[in-house]
Amino acid sequence: MKKISDSTVKRLSKYYRSLEHLIEKGVETVSSEELAEMDGITSAQVRKDLSFFGTFGKRGLGYNTRALKDQIAEILGLNRRWNVAIVGAGNIGRALVAYEEFRKQGFDIKLIMDSDPQKIGNEIHGLRIEDVNRAPELIAQERIDIAIIAVPANAAQQVADMLVEAGVKAILNFAPRSLKVPPHVHIKNENMAIEIEALSYHLSNRNRANS
Amino acid sequence: MKKISDSTVKRLSKYYRSLEHLIEKGVETVSSEELAEMDGITSAQVRKDLSFFGTFGKRGLGYNTRALKDQIAEILGLNRRWNVAIVGAGNIGRALVAYEEFRKQGFDIKLIMDSDPQKIGNEIHGLRIEDVNRAPELIAQERIDIAIIAVPANAAQQVADMLVEAGVKAILNFAPRSLKVPPHVHIKNENMAIEIEALSYHLSNRNRANS
Repeated sequence: MKKISDSTVKRLSKYYRSLEHLIEKGVETVSSEELAEMDGITSAQVRKDLSFFGTFGKRGLGYNTRALKDQIAEILGLNRRWNVAIVGAGNIGRALVAYEEFRKQGFDIKLIMDSDPQKIGNEIHGLRIEDVNRAPELIAQERIDIAIIAVPANAAQQVADMLVEAGVKAILNFAPRSLKVPPHVHIKNENMAIEIEALSYHLSNRNRANS
Repeated sequence: MKKISDSTVKRLSKYYRSLEHLIEKGVETVSSEELAEMDGITSAQVRKDLSFFGTFGKRGLGYNTRALKDQIAEILGLNRRWNVAIVGAGNIGRALVAYEEFRKQGFDIKLIMDSDPQKIGNEIHGLRIEDVNRAPELIAQERIDIAIIAVPANAAQQVADMLVEAGVKAILNFAPRSLKVPPHVHIKNENMAIEIEALSYHLSNRNRANS
Protein backbone atom coordinates (compact mmCIF):
# COMPACT_ATOMS: atom_id res chain seq x y z
CA MET A 1 0.00 0.00 0.00
CA LYS A 2 1.20 3.50 -0.83
CA LYS A 3 2.15 5.81 2.02
CA ILE A 4 -0.80 8.03 2.89
CA SER A 5 -0.28 11.59 4.13
CA ASP A 6 -1.41 12.62 7.61
CA SER A 7 -3.98 15.00 6.17
CA THR A 8 -5.46 12.20 4.02
CA VAL A 9 -5.69 9.95 7.10
CA LYS A 10 -7.53 12.73 8.91
CA ARG A 11 -9.97 13.17 6.02
CA LEU A 12 -10.58 9.39 5.99
CA SER A 13 -11.65 9.70 9.66
CA LYS A 14 -14.13 12.37 8.61
CA TYR A 15 -15.51 10.35 5.68
CA TYR A 16 -15.86 7.43 8.09
CA ARG A 17 -18.08 9.50 10.39
CA SER A 18 -20.15 10.84 7.52
CA LEU A 19 -20.64 7.28 6.25
CA GLU A 20 -21.72 6.10 9.72
CA HIS A 21 -24.24 8.92 9.76
CA LEU A 22 -25.55 8.02 6.27
CA ILE A 23 -25.83 4.31 7.15
CA GLU A 24 -27.79 5.19 10.31
CA LYS A 25 -30.21 7.11 8.07
CA GLY A 26 -30.50 4.10 5.76
CA VAL A 27 -28.63 5.67 2.82
CA GLU A 28 -27.06 2.98 0.59
CA THR A 29 -24.98 4.94 -1.91
CA VAL A 30 -23.18 8.26 -1.79
CA SER A 31 -21.44 10.35 -4.46
CA SER A 32 -18.06 12.02 -4.01
CA GLU A 33 -19.93 15.34 -4.29
CA GLU A 34 -22.19 14.44 -1.36
CA LEU A 35 -19.27 13.27 0.79
CA ALA A 36 -17.39 16.45 -0.11
CA GLU A 37 -20.31 18.63 0.89
CA MET A 38 -20.71 16.85 4.25
CA ASP A 39 -17.05 17.35 5.08
CA GLY A 40 -16.51 20.78 3.53
CA ILE A 41 -13.89 19.82 0.95
CA THR A 42 -13.83 19.46 -2.86
CA SER A 43 -15.22 16.37 -4.59
CA ALA A 44 -11.94 16.09 -6.54
CA GLN A 45 -10.12 15.73 -3.19
CA VAL A 46 -12.57 13.00 -2.06
CA ARG A 47 -12.01 11.04 -5.28
CA LYS A 48 -8.24 11.49 -4.99
CA ASP A 49 -8.21 10.33 -1.35
CA LEU A 50 -10.31 7.26 -2.09
CA SER A 51 -8.37 6.39 -5.24
CA PHE A 52 -5.35 5.60 -3.03
CA PHE A 53 -7.02 2.35 -2.08
CA GLY A 54 -8.19 1.18 -5.47
CA THR A 55 -11.50 1.97 -7.12
CA PHE A 56 -14.47 1.81 -4.79
CA GLY A 57 -16.93 3.90 -6.73
CA LYS A 58 -18.81 3.03 -9.85
CA ARG A 59 -18.98 5.87 -12.33
CA GLY A 60 -22.36 7.57 -12.07
CA LEU A 61 -23.50 5.26 -9.25
CA GLY A 62 -21.40 6.56 -6.39
CA TYR A 63 -20.00 4.55 -3.50
CA ASN A 64 -21.76 1.84 -1.54
CA THR A 65 -21.84 3.36 1.96
CA ARG A 66 -21.30 0.09 3.89
CA ALA A 67 -18.52 -1.20 1.66
CA LEU A 68 -16.70 2.13 1.77
CA LYS A 69 -17.09 2.40 5.55
CA ASP A 70 -15.72 -1.13 6.06
CA GLN A 71 -12.79 -0.45 3.76
CA ILE A 72 -11.90 2.80 5.56
CA ALA A 73 -12.27 1.01 8.92
CA GLU A 74 -9.72 -1.54 7.79
CA ILE A 75 -7.31 1.15 6.58
CA LEU A 76 -7.60 3.13 9.82
CA GLY A 77 -7.37 0.04 12.01
CA LEU A 78 -10.90 0.54 13.32
CA ASN A 79 -11.90 -3.08 12.63
CA ARG A 80 -10.21 -4.25 15.83
CA ARG A 81 -9.87 -3.14 19.49
CA TRP A 82 -6.93 -1.13 20.82
CA ASN A 83 -5.78 -1.00 24.44
CA VAL A 84 -5.22 2.53 25.64
CA ALA A 85 -3.52 3.93 28.78
CA ILE A 86 -3.92 7.49 30.05
CA VAL A 87 -1.23 9.22 32.09
CA GLY A 88 -2.70 12.04 34.17
CA ALA A 89 -5.99 11.87 36.09
CA GLY A 90 -6.73 15.60 35.90
CA ASN A 91 -9.70 17.12 34.09
CA ILE A 92 -8.61 16.05 30.62
CA GLY A 93 -7.73 12.50 31.73
CA ARG A 94 -11.09 12.16 33.48
CA ALA A 95 -12.95 13.53 30.46
CA LEU A 96 -11.20 11.01 28.21
CA VAL A 97 -12.08 8.02 30.42
CA ALA A 98 -15.72 9.04 30.04
CA TYR A 99 -15.46 9.87 26.32
CA GLU A 100 -17.86 7.44 24.61
CA GLU A 101 -16.49 8.15 21.14
CA PHE A 102 -13.21 6.36 21.97
CA ARG A 103 -14.87 3.11 23.01
CA LYS A 104 -17.28 3.32 20.07
CA GLN A 105 -14.39 3.48 17.58
CA GLY A 106 -12.45 0.61 19.15
CA PHE A 107 -10.26 2.36 21.72
CA ASP A 108 -10.60 0.77 25.17
CA ILE A 109 -9.20 2.74 28.10
CA LYS A 110 -7.62 -0.03 30.18
CA LEU A 111 -5.45 2.00 32.50
CA ILE A 112 -5.23 5.47 34.03
CA MET A 113 -2.24 6.53 36.08
CA ASP A 114 -1.21 9.56 38.13
CA SER A 115 1.65 10.55 40.44
CA ASP A 116 -0.55 12.26 43.04
CA PRO A 117 -0.97 10.06 46.17
CA GLN A 118 -4.31 11.83 46.80
CA LYS A 119 -5.62 10.48 43.48
CA ILE A 120 -4.07 7.00 43.41
CA GLY A 121 -6.63 4.37 44.42
CA ASN A 122 -9.67 6.51 43.54
CA GLU A 123 -11.94 5.36 40.75
CA ILE A 124 -13.06 7.16 37.58
CA HIS A 125 -15.96 5.46 35.80
CA GLY A 126 -15.03 2.16 37.45
CA LEU A 127 -11.34 2.41 36.54
CA ARG A 128 -8.88 2.56 39.45
CA ILE A 129 -6.24 5.32 39.27
CA GLU A 130 -2.87 3.54 39.44
CA ASP A 131 0.53 4.80 40.57
CA VAL A 132 2.47 6.04 37.54
CA ASN A 133 5.61 4.50 39.07
CA ARG A 134 4.13 1.11 38.22
CA ALA A 135 3.74 2.11 34.55
CA PRO A 136 6.27 -0.31 33.00
CA GLU A 137 4.68 -3.32 34.72
CA LEU A 138 1.06 -2.22 34.12
CA ILE A 139 1.63 -1.26 30.47
CA ALA A 140 3.02 -4.74 29.76
CA GLN A 141 0.28 -6.46 31.77
CA GLU A 142 -2.58 -4.62 29.99
CA ARG A 143 -0.88 -5.00 26.57
CA ILE A 144 -1.19 -1.25 25.96
CA ASP A 145 -1.04 -0.19 22.28
CA ILE A 146 -1.52 3.57 22.63
CA ALA A 147 -0.76 5.92 25.53
CA ILE A 148 -2.35 9.32 26.06
CA ILE A 149 -0.39 12.05 27.84
CA ALA A 150 -2.72 14.30 29.85
CA VAL A 151 -0.27 15.86 32.33
CA PRO A 152 0.87 19.50 32.70
CA ALA A 153 3.23 20.77 29.97
CA ASN A 154 6.30 20.78 32.22
CA ALA A 155 5.93 17.06 33.05
CA ALA A 156 5.05 15.88 29.54
CA GLN A 157 8.53 15.12 28.15
CA GLN A 158 9.45 13.07 31.21
CA VAL A 159 6.24 11.04 30.85
CA ALA A 160 6.93 10.55 27.12
CA ASP A 161 10.44 9.24 27.90
CA MET A 162 9.01 6.84 30.47
CA LEU A 163 6.36 5.57 28.02
CA VAL A 164 8.94 4.98 25.28
CA GLU A 165 11.12 3.15 27.81
CA ALA A 166 8.10 0.98 28.71
CA GLY A 167 7.75 -0.03 25.05
CA VAL A 168 4.78 2.13 23.97
CA LYS A 169 4.80 2.64 20.17
CA ALA A 170 2.07 5.27 19.78
CA ILE A 171 1.41 8.38 21.87
CA LEU A 172 -1.38 10.96 21.78
CA ASN A 173 -0.22 14.14 23.50
CA PHE A 174 -2.72 16.58 25.03
CA ALA A 175 -0.04 18.68 26.76
CA PRO A 176 0.53 21.96 24.86
CA ARG A 177 4.20 21.22 24.19
CA SER A 178 6.13 19.51 21.37
CA LEU A 179 7.66 16.26 22.60
CA LYS A 180 10.69 14.37 21.34
CA VAL A 181 10.37 10.63 20.77
CA PRO A 182 12.53 8.16 18.80
CA PRO A 183 11.60 7.62 15.12
CA HIS A 184 10.00 4.19 15.76
CA VAL A 185 7.38 5.82 18.04
CA HIS A 186 4.36 7.56 16.49
CA ILE A 187 3.22 10.72 18.23
CA LYS A 188 0.24 12.99 17.56
CA ASN A 189 -0.54 16.26 19.29
CA GLU A 190 -4.10 17.10 20.21
CA ASN A 191 -4.55 20.84 20.49
CA MET A 192 -8.04 21.83 21.53
CA ALA A 193 -7.38 25.49 20.66
CA ILE A 194 -7.01 24.86 16.91
CA GLU A 195 -10.74 24.62 16.13
CA ILE A 196 -11.65 27.66 18.20
CA GLU A 197 -9.10 29.68 16.21
CA ALA A 198 -10.97 28.80 13.02
CA LEU A 199 -13.99 30.46 14.66
CA SER A 200 -12.09 33.61 15.64
CA TYR A 201 -10.81 33.75 12.05
CA HIS A 202 -14.37 33.70 10.71
CA LEU A 203 -15.62 36.24 13.28
CA SER A 204 -12.67 38.56 12.56
CA ASN A 205 -13.26 38.48 8.86
CA ARG A 206 -16.98 39.06 9.25
CA ASN A 207 -16.27 42.06 11.47
CA ARG A 208 -13.79 43.37 8.92
CA ALA A 209 -16.30 42.92 6.10
CA ASN A 210 -18.98 44.78 8.08
CA SER A 211 -16.80 47.70 9.10
CA MET B 1 -9.04 39.47 1.29
CA LYS B 2 -9.52 36.21 -0.60
CA LYS B 3 -11.55 33.47 1.03
CA ILE B 4 -9.27 31.03 2.81
CA SER B 5 -10.15 27.34 3.05
CA ASP B 6 -10.73 25.70 6.43
CA SER B 7 -7.67 23.51 6.00
CA THR B 8 -5.49 26.56 5.31
CA VAL B 9 -6.83 28.26 8.45
CA LYS B 10 -5.93 25.13 10.44
CA ARG B 11 -2.41 25.10 9.02
CA LEU B 12 -2.04 28.80 9.91
CA SER B 13 -2.82 27.84 13.53
CA LYS B 14 -0.01 25.29 13.35
CA TYR B 15 2.49 27.71 11.80
CA TYR B 16 1.55 30.17 14.53
CA ARG B 17 2.51 27.66 17.23
CA SER B 18 5.75 26.74 15.51
CA LEU B 19 6.60 30.44 15.23
CA GLU B 20 5.87 30.98 18.93
CA HIS B 21 8.20 28.09 19.69
CA LEU B 22 10.96 29.50 17.43
CA ILE B 23 10.63 33.01 18.93
CA GLU B 24 10.90 31.53 22.46
CA LYS B 25 14.17 29.93 21.35
CA GLY B 26 15.41 33.29 19.99
CA VAL B 27 15.20 32.30 16.29
CA GLU B 28 14.74 35.38 14.07
CA THR B 29 14.16 33.96 10.60
CA VAL B 30 12.67 30.72 9.30
CA SER B 31 12.49 29.19 5.81
CA SER B 32 9.37 27.59 4.33
CA GLU B 33 11.32 24.29 4.44
CA GLU B 34 11.86 24.60 8.19
CA LEU B 35 8.23 25.51 8.86
CA ALA B 36 7.15 22.59 6.65
CA GLU B 37 9.35 20.16 8.56
CA MET B 38 8.03 21.33 11.94
CA ASP B 39 4.44 20.87 10.83
CA GLY B 40 4.82 17.76 8.69
CA ILE B 41 3.72 19.22 5.36
CA THR B 42 5.44 20.24 2.10
CA SER B 43 7.34 23.54 1.78
CA ALA B 44 5.38 24.26 -1.42
CA GLN B 45 2.19 24.12 0.67
CA VAL B 46 3.68 26.51 3.26
CA ARG B 47 4.61 29.01 0.55
CA LYS B 48 1.19 28.67 -1.07
CA ASP B 49 -0.61 29.19 2.27
CA LEU B 50 1.41 32.27 3.14
CA SER B 51 1.15 33.74 -0.36
CA PHE B 52 -2.58 34.27 0.26
CA PHE B 53 -1.70 37.22 2.43
CA GLY B 54 0.88 38.90 0.23
CA THR B 55 4.62 38.27 0.24
CA PHE B 56 6.10 37.95 3.68
CA GLY B 57 9.29 36.11 2.84
CA LYS B 58 12.39 37.43 1.15
CA ARG B 59 13.83 35.04 -1.39
CA GLY B 60 16.76 33.16 0.14
CA LEU B 61 16.33 34.91 3.50
CA GLY B 62 13.16 33.23 4.76
CA TYR B 63 10.49 34.79 6.92
CA ASN B 64 11.01 37.05 9.90
CA THR B 65 9.50 34.98 12.73
CA ARG B 66 7.97 37.89 14.70
CA ALA B 67 6.53 39.66 11.65
CA LEU B 68 5.02 36.43 10.34
CA LYS B 69 3.59 35.51 13.76
CA ASP B 70 1.99 38.96 14.13
CA GLN B 71 0.52 38.78 10.65
CA ILE B 72 -0.97 35.32 11.24
CA ALA B 73 -2.30 36.51 14.62
CA GLU B 74 -4.12 39.30 12.86
CA ILE B 75 -5.56 36.96 10.23
CA LEU B 76 -6.76 34.45 12.85
CA GLY B 77 -8.11 37.15 15.15
CA LEU B 78 -5.59 36.29 17.88
CA ASN B 79 -4.55 39.93 18.35
CA ARG B 80 -7.59 40.62 20.51
CA ARG B 81 -9.57 38.92 23.33
CA TRP B 82 -12.71 36.83 22.77
CA ASN B 83 -15.42 36.14 25.35
CA VAL B 84 -16.33 32.48 25.55
CA ALA B 85 -19.22 30.64 27.22
CA ILE B 86 -19.30 26.92 27.93
CA VAL B 87 -22.57 24.97 28.13
CA GLY B 88 -22.10 21.78 30.16
CA ALA B 89 -20.12 21.50 33.39
CA GLY B 90 -19.22 17.84 32.96
CA ASN B 91 -15.68 16.53 32.53
CA ILE B 92 -15.04 18.21 29.19
CA GLY B 93 -16.49 21.54 30.34
CA ARG B 94 -14.38 21.46 33.49
CA ALA B 95 -11.26 20.54 31.53
CA LEU B 96 -11.87 23.46 29.17
CA VAL B 97 -12.27 26.00 31.99
CA ALA B 98 -8.83 24.91 33.20
CA TYR B 99 -7.27 24.74 29.73
CA GLU B 100 -4.45 27.31 29.77
CA GLU B 101 -4.01 27.27 25.99
CA PHE B 102 -7.37 29.01 25.48
CA ARG B 103 -6.55 31.98 27.71
CA LYS B 104 -3.02 32.18 26.28
CA GLN B 105 -4.40 32.56 22.73
CA GLY B 106 -6.99 35.19 23.64
CA PHE B 107 -10.05 33.11 24.54
CA ASP B 108 -11.42 34.09 27.96
CA ILE B 109 -13.95 31.72 29.51
CA LYS B 110 -16.45 34.17 31.02
CA LEU B 111 -19.36 31.87 31.66
CA ILE B 112 -20.11 28.20 32.31
CA MET B 113 -23.67 26.92 32.50
CA ASP B 114 -25.41 23.65 33.29
CA SER B 115 -28.97 22.40 33.78
CA ASP B 116 -28.19 20.18 36.80
CA PRO B 117 -29.39 21.81 40.07
CA GLN B 118 -26.64 19.83 41.88
CA LYS B 119 -23.99 21.66 39.84
CA ILE B 120 -25.48 25.17 39.63
CA GLY B 121 -23.81 27.50 42.14
CA ASN B 122 -20.64 25.40 42.47
CA GLU B 123 -17.35 26.91 41.33
CA ILE B 124 -14.81 25.62 38.79
CA HIS B 125 -11.50 27.48 38.91
CA GLY B 126 -13.23 30.48 40.45
CA LEU B 127 -16.04 30.53 37.88
CA ARG B 128 -19.56 30.00 39.22
CA ILE B 129 -21.69 27.43 37.36
CA GLU B 130 -24.83 29.28 36.22
CA ASP B 131 -28.29 28.00 35.37
CA VAL B 132 -28.53 27.36 31.63
CA ASN B 133 -32.09 28.74 31.74
CA ARG B 134 -30.53 32.17 32.28
CA ALA B 135 -28.41 31.77 29.11
CA PRO B 136 -30.03 34.51 26.97
CA GLU B 137 -29.57 37.13 29.70
CA LEU B 138 -26.04 36.01 30.70
CA ILE B 139 -24.79 35.69 27.11
CA ALA B 140 -25.83 39.29 26.43
CA GLN B 141 -24.44 40.53 29.74
CA GLU B 142 -21.00 38.91 29.25
CA ARG B 143 -20.90 39.91 25.56
CA ILE B 144 -20.18 36.32 24.53
CA ASP B 145 -18.52 35.90 21.10
CA ILE B 146 -18.11 32.13 21.02
CA ALA B 147 -20.03 29.35 22.79
CA ILE B 148 -18.73 25.84 23.43
CA ILE B 149 -21.17 22.92 23.58
CA ALA B 150 -19.96 20.29 26.04
CA VAL B 151 -23.21 18.43 26.78
CA PRO B 152 -24.23 14.83 25.95
CA ALA B 153 -24.98 14.13 22.26
CA ASN B 154 -28.75 13.87 22.78
CA ALA B 155 -28.96 17.38 24.29
CA ALA B 156 -26.59 19.10 21.85
CA GLN B 157 -29.05 20.22 19.14
CA GLN B 158 -31.39 21.75 21.69
CA VAL B 159 -28.48 23.68 23.23
CA ALA B 160 -27.35 24.82 19.77
CA ASP B 161 -30.86 26.13 19.00
CA MET B 162 -30.93 28.00 22.31
CA LEU B 163 -27.49 29.56 21.64
CA VAL B 164 -28.51 30.69 18.15
CA GLU B 165 -31.70 32.17 19.62
CA ALA B 166 -29.55 34.03 22.18
CA GLY B 167 -27.57 35.63 19.34
CA VAL B 168 -24.35 33.57 19.45
CA LYS B 169 -22.56 33.72 16.07
CA ALA B 170 -19.86 31.06 16.58
CA ILE B 171 -20.12 27.61 18.19
CA LEU B 172 -17.50 24.99 18.99
CA ASN B 173 -19.20 21.60 19.39
CA PHE B 174 -17.60 18.85 21.50
CA ALA B 175 -20.67 16.59 21.36
CA PRO B 176 -20.16 13.72 18.90
CA ARG B 177 -23.09 14.71 16.71
CA SER B 178 -23.55 16.96 13.65
CA LEU B 179 -25.61 20.00 14.54
CA LYS B 180 -27.77 22.18 12.33
CA VAL B 181 -27.39 25.94 12.62
CA PRO B 182 -28.49 28.79 10.31
CA PRO B 183 -25.96 29.90 7.65
CA HIS B 184 -24.98 33.09 9.53
CA VAL B 185 -23.68 31.02 12.48
CA HIS B 186 -20.22 29.44 12.28
CA ILE B 187 -19.90 25.99 13.79
CA LYS B 188 -16.83 23.76 14.23
CA ASN B 189 -16.83 20.22 15.55
CA GLU B 190 -14.08 19.10 17.88
CA ASN B 191 -13.66 15.35 17.70
CA MET B 192 -11.03 14.05 20.08
CA ALA B 193 -11.06 10.63 18.40
CA ILE B 194 -9.65 11.90 15.08
CA GLU B 195 -6.01 12.10 16.19
CA ILE B 196 -6.07 8.70 17.91
CA GLU B 197 -7.30 7.17 14.63
CA ALA B 198 -4.17 8.48 12.91
CA LEU B 199 -2.21 6.44 15.47
CA SER B 200 -4.23 3.26 14.91
CA TYR B 201 -3.67 3.78 11.17
CA HIS B 202 0.10 3.88 11.68
CA LEU B 203 0.08 0.90 14.07
CA SER B 204 -2.08 -1.12 11.66
CA ASN B 205 0.16 -0.45 8.74
CA ARG B 206 3.27 -1.27 10.73
CA ASN B 207 1.69 -4.56 11.78
CA ARG B 208 0.74 -5.29 8.17
CA ALA B 209 4.26 -4.49 6.98
CA ASN B 210 5.72 -6.82 9.63
CA SER B 211 3.36 -9.71 9.01
